[in-house]
Amino acid sequence: MAVQTVAGTSTTTPAFADNPHQNSFGPAVALSCRECGTRYALTPVFACQECFGPLEVAYELPLGDPEDLRRRIEAGPANIWRYAPLLPVPADVTAKQNLNPGWTKLVKADNLARELGVTGGLYVKDDSGNPTHSFKDRVVAIALEAARTFGLTTLSCSSTGNLAGAVGAAAARAGFRSCVFIPHDLEQGKVVMAAVYGGDLVAIEGSYDDVNRFCSELIGDPIGEGWGFVNVNLRPYYGEGSKTLAYEIAEQLGWRLPDNLVIPIASGSQLTKIDKGLQELIKLGLVEDKPYKIFGAQAEGCSPVSAAFKAGHDVVRPVKPDTIAKSLAIGNPADGPYVLDIARRTGGAIEDVNDEQVVDAIKLLARTEGIFGETAGGVTVGVLKKLIETGQLDPAAETVVLNTGDGLKTLDAVAPTTGPTATIRPTVAAFREAGLA
Amino acid sequence: MAVQTVAGTSTTTPAFADNPHQNSFGPAVALSCRECGTRYALTPVFACQECFGPLEVAYELPLGDPEDLRRRIEAGPANIWRYAPLLPVPADVTAKQNLNPGWTKLVKADNLARELGVTGGLYVKDDSGNPTHSFKDRVVAIALEAARTFGLTTLSCSSTGNLAGAVGAAAARAGFRSCVFIPHDLEQGKVVMAAVYGGDLVAIEGSYDDVNRFCSELIGDPIGEGWGFVNVNLRPYYGEGSKTLAYEIAEQLGWRLPDNLVIPIASGSQLTKIDKGLQELIKLGLVEDKPYKIFGAQAEGCSPVSAAFKAGHDVVRPVKPDTIAKSLAIGNPADGPYVLDIARRTGGAIEDVNDEQVVDAIKLLARTEGIFGETAGGVTVGVLKKLIETGQLDPAAETVVLNTGDGLKTLDAVAPTTGPTATIRPTVAAFREAGLA
Repeated sequence: MAVQTVAGTSTTTPAFADNPHQNSFGPAVALSCRECGTRYALTPVFACQECFGPLEVAYELPLGDPEDLRRRIEAGPANIWRYAPLLPVPADVTAKQNLNPGWTKLVKADNLARELGVTGGLYVKDDSGNPTHSFKDRVVAIALEAARTFGLTTLSCSSTGNLAGAVGAAAARAGFRSCVFIPHDLEQGKVVMAAVYGGDLVAIEGSYDDVNRFCSELIGDPIGEGWGFVNVNLRPYYGEGSKTLAYEIAEQLGWRLPDNLVIPIASGSQLTKIDKGLQELIKLGLVEDKPYKIFGAQAEGCSPVSAAFKAGHDVVRPVKPDTIAKSLAIGNPADGPYVLDIARRTGGAIEDVNDEQVVDAIKLLARTEGIFGETAGGVTVGVLKKLIETGQLDPAAETVVLNTGDGLKTLDAVAPTTGPTATIRPTVAAFREAGLA
Repeated sequence: MAVQTVAGTSTTTPAFADNPHQNSFGPAVALSCRECGTRYALTPVFACQECFGPLEVAYELPLGDPEDLRRRIEAGPANIWRYAPLLPVPADVTAKQNLNPGWTKLVKADNLARELGVTGGLYVKDDSGNPTHSFKDRVVAIALEAARTFGLTTLSCSSTGNLAGAVGAAAARAGFRSCVFIPHDLEQGKVVMAAVYGGDLVAIEGSYDDVNRFCSELIGDPIGEGWGFVNVNLRPYYGEGSKTLAYEIAEQLGWRLPDNLVIPIASGSQLTKIDKGLQELIKLGLVEDKPYKIFGAQAEGCSPVSAAFKAGHDVVRPVKPDTIAKSLAIGNPADGPYVLDIARRTGGAIEDVNDEQVVDAIKLLARTEGIFGETAGGVTVGVLKKLIETGQLDPAAETVVLNTGDGLKTLDAVAPTTGPTATIRPTVAAFREAGLA
């Protein structure tokens, strides 16, 4: 069978040669440093020993006949495992206990298109349909399978929301212990969502940054042996889950690429992995090679990548977040420079909207398409509107906008401005008087 | 093509002969009184003029080759419209703007099975995966298509929760006006969920019963012309949406019936329509004819059908609800007598659990399968546990239990008993001291 290296270089270190779990990672052959290309064995490591660059999964993908691969995928299950041939998971992954996220709806959003003046076709990729109602189920599912392969027994993360629920739920289903760390002053609703799956939930007296620092310390301590922090030592695997958004969008469009994608930016990992997924589809011949533009979306109160884009900088200056879009509130986004690269290379852009625009966009999406998105969905839809109004995105081109979470988790954002049209006595006369007949 | 009447009799009234919308209802040919069999045209009526019995949709289903029909269904979309050949909807329903609910996960619940001692196979049909995260999206989708066919322009309902969101979202997507009526003292979270889709939301100064009485008055008033109340004048169509739960369970099991189904009871409509769906599958030859038992689940604080079952009565005595399972809190369930019939005919039973058992069951489902269900899901899982413990349900038989809604909508039920395992300072020493290492 013909093979071709899709990502990474062929540099091989001794660590790479010693690859004890090769058969459990499908087409993945190594971890590869994004900066210097040094390769490592597929183990729970995340930073390059040579240059401290981030590691990512490198593949030798079978090329063969794209038609065969398409048919194989289409015959697969209605979840991310239909793409198992393109993911770092074992061939029998569907036999494991997993939440099986993905294959969420790609909604043709004609009403929203009319409101925004989009004439080239507009779609919402609605990831609120995942098991715990955010895209985090995708990334956690891959991290979980890596943890299983490595013999890790505790699944962990630091989180202020979506990730805590995704880790708790996935661990419960898979029979892992979970231990999730949150700041002690989270709203009760989020605490309940994180705790209900029955794992350990530890509230840390400090800020989210304190929680993260504590987690890094724990990984280095003997206590952390056997622990998989999904977004730290399992991060290279975790990140690959976002590629499935690219695969699904292309397949749901009938195996082709859209012209524009509008993607939220928190750490920036999701955006970079969607780009990686689109590139893989082209290289595998699963879609026709055509240009696409990637647009990044941030909230004004946490817009370091948008600011760097507008200023023409290659580096991202950290900020202290202050926005209602808390799931995007990462002030020092690890993948910021790569996001800048991608937006510039593809001819896209990065924009931000303020909190009021976020709320307006949540309501716009709800009243046009019946989709109640999270604040992150308000950010992407709001940015799409702004990109069109400022002439940065061509409304005659076909566009996909992501909603990565669920409005039920961020009710507070819309509550102050969302309520009954009228309050009346239970009589027809009162209804008529209210002017609603 | 051979045809066979699956439901209803061949009695034809003048009203039935005058059937202006026949082509828009697929295999449906009439409304038929469940009590006396009198037939009516497919119009927005819901009660028999002869005996005041409830009307339901009657079909002439094409028999033909079951293999052909199975293949046609399997080639259909991943939502309820794959069953369009068995539903009262037009053949081109997939071209309409609709939320396209259904095809939710049937989760093999091995962990829960172990905890409950089920050895014959246990599945959770998880309807929290629907667009607004409850099974109501199924019934509203069918009612909406009927409203479209009838030229109605306002979609309406009375509701205290799930239905309001489902109607608001479906109407927004389909370009209908919506006007939803709620009691004025609902919790703010539920008000936000009902209002965010931008339709009219009217708070009524009174109880839920007052809201219902007001809606009945409005239907009789000229104001109500052009209005489709999904659970009143569109109720015969609305109810058919629940049949899709039966179809999906059978198809997801590989076109066969389980031995036991555990189904929540509010009005009882869902349970009766699931039974109707299972009977249709047998008559059409889509599944092998085998016995199955239907078990109904109520909360102790609103258990009129369970009480009637245990007392051996045929009639249901209304109660005043007092339970945390508010989505099941219908004190005078319209389909109660039919539910009793079905439970007795199939050899099933009806049980109830108290609020503490509901909460325990929500947590049990969450910690074993990573599914955070609504209080209604706590009722079915709790009742399943009780049925096994009391010897009413055979644990060696294959069982499907329904989760019809989402825990995010009933956080208050578990909040008082769900929180952090520990609260600590951000140091490894503190973590070790907390006994969690």
